[in-house]
Amino acid sequence: MTTVTELLQPVELDLEHLLTDLRSLIGAGHPILQAAAEHLFSAGGKRIRPGIVLLLSRALSDESELSSRHRRLAEITEMIHTASLVHDDVVDDASTRRGVPTVHSQFNHRVAVLAGDFLFAQASWHLANLDNLDVVKLLSRVIMDLADGEIKQGLYRFDAGQSFSTYLEKSFCKTASLIANSSQAVGVLSNLPEEKLKLLYQFGKQLGLAFQVVDDILDFTGNDKQLGKPAVSDLASGYLTAPVYYAIEEHPFLETLIAREFSSKGDLDKALDLVNNSNAIARSRELAQKLAMESREAIKWIPESPSQRALLELPEFVLSRLY
Amino acid sequence: MTTVTELLQPVELDLEHLLTDLRSLIGAGHPILQAAAEHLFSAGGKRIRPGIVLLLSRALSDESELSSRHRRLAEITEMIHTASLVHDDVVDDASTRRGVPTVHSQFNHRVAVLAGDFLFAQASWHLANLDNLDVVKLLSRVIMDLADGEIKQGLYRFDAGQSFSTYLEKSFCKTASLIANSSQAVGVLSNLPEEKLKLLYQFGKQLGLAFQVVDDILDFTGNDKQLGKPAVSDLASGYLTAPVYYAIEEHPFLETLIAREFSSKGDLDKALDLVNNSNAIARSRELAQKLAMESREAIKWIPESPSQRALLELPEFVLSRLY
Repeated sequence: MTTVTELLQPVELDLEHLLTDLRSLIGAGHPILQAAAEHLFSAGGKRIRPGIVLLLSRALSDESELSSRHRRLAEITEMIHTASLVHDDVVDDASTRRGVPTVHSQFNHRVAVLAGDFLFAQASWHLANLDNLDVVKLLSRVIMDLADGEIKQGLYRFDAGQSFSTYLEKSFCKTASLIANSSQAVGVLSNLPEEKLKLLYQFGKQLGLAFQVVDDILDFTGNDKQLGKPAVSDLASGYLTAPVYYAIEEHPFLETLIAREFSSKGDLDKALDLVNNSNAIARSRELAQKLAMESREAIKWIPESPSQRALLELPEFVLSRLY
Repeated sequence: MTTVTELLQPVELDLEHLLTDLRSLIGAGHPILQAAAEHLFSAGGKRIRPGIVLLLSRALSDESELSSRHRRLAEITEMIHTASLVHDDVVDDASTRRGVPTVHSQFNHRVAVLAGDFLFAQASWHLANLDNLDVVKLLSRVIMDLADGEIKQGLYRFDAGQSFSTYLEKSFCKTASLIANSSQAVGVLSNLPEEKLKLLYQFGKQLGLAFQVVDDILDFTGNDKQLGKPAVSDLASGYLTAPVYYAIEEHPFLETLIAREFSSKGDLDKALDLVNNSNAIARSRELAQKLAMESREAIKWIPESPSQRALLELPEFVLSRLY
């Protein structure tokens, strides 16, 4: 099976470059933030998001030289993503993320607020100085969607009365918006025509949604190592995802368990049984496959190159986490 | 003596309009944020910052009709300011601001992080959609300076080895940058030539610095009602301001008291005595007066109108808080 490292091999050096840049940008002259920056931008992270921006940037140019604006866009994308993670962990009171202590648990919530604000501020400053109003609009949409998604997620906790499309909307805001809008932004910087920009957006949107659905399936089927968090932690926290919505269609009693917030003894185990004794996981897999396929379809026009091949493999790679 | 309400009279209705807009923008559909929005944008606040933007907007147009972009700029300015206050109160662990409980003490720090992020996100979205890259750059500089100022303030606590210019730099970042850059942005939206833009920036910069120096003097001479916080609370927290730097020049022992963080009994009272038995307050007043005068000088070219008269009175009004 392809690993992330293999997949991102065409932009491996670009990613190293990016991490060095981000560490020095954030840490420079601010000892309080230096430690947080080291913590956030140390090697080992998967960096899928800037990886996608860089792969697209190479695939849509002549590959020999990456423009400094494309590089900067990848950095901005990662800054926005990281800032939002750091603040979300404060809001959700999460003590670890993928097995690593969060900034607010490693330091304190005041450092986490400061570090996130500083990253958002840097992102917004560098964004303005890309000197392209369309790119500013696309990425400011991402910042808006991330805040909106975090609010939606809190609002809809334990609320099984919400529709499936609300779940997809929340997933779009929290995961897909950044990939969709930054993919389109690469196209803007590469002067592509409107119809190609739409396809790049579609590629990122469906890929992001597929990624989120896979994550949501793994909350039921995965192990701690894969997830970096205890299984069914989403469900236990009241975050309702694709498998839950599908399972409710077969077992309406699940809605009752959710509505009482699993307050009776054994409720959570019962809920898990109901999901497992249904077609929920199978249907969720089908949804993820459909989204991944649509994502791949959307970029078939990109000319052949090592980066293009990696991009075409990405949707399948996202699904491979399920096997 | 002129009151704020009298001073802002030419834009009184504009400000009411702005507050209604902000409340509905932030609260819409988000019960968690609704209460925070009511708390933040209830009547009673002074709204000096959007007031300045609105006065300049009227003074630099024909006054009969305010453009929707000028209105939006005033809203963005207030959103950025409020977002930064909410987060700074978390970082500084402040329980009240001007006598009113802070969002994180009234609700909790998770709501405060969410509300601040949502305001920053809204600001960045509306900013991009003003469709003017120069305005985007000016306001993104503000966001950057606010984060930078908050970091600097933390870094320089109890550090009397810092220079006076470091203090001014921090004050610029935390207070003057927003007024300077938003004043210039009004000029950009009103299509003024470069030399006028520079003067608008100068007006806002000197006014913001004067405002900060006055605030810093009031920490020593004011009462709780004027400040909404106990006297010498800045000094006690280790935030060194103009009066302190001037007093150290006459009484170097003050530096020792600061370096040991007022850890011996009576240290803070001794420090206060040293400041009071020096020319520190008088020199700080002179500095504030000089800054206020320079601010007024910078906008003498604006044609006569009710808003212009209010603007010319502003610097004197800032100083009047001292009497």
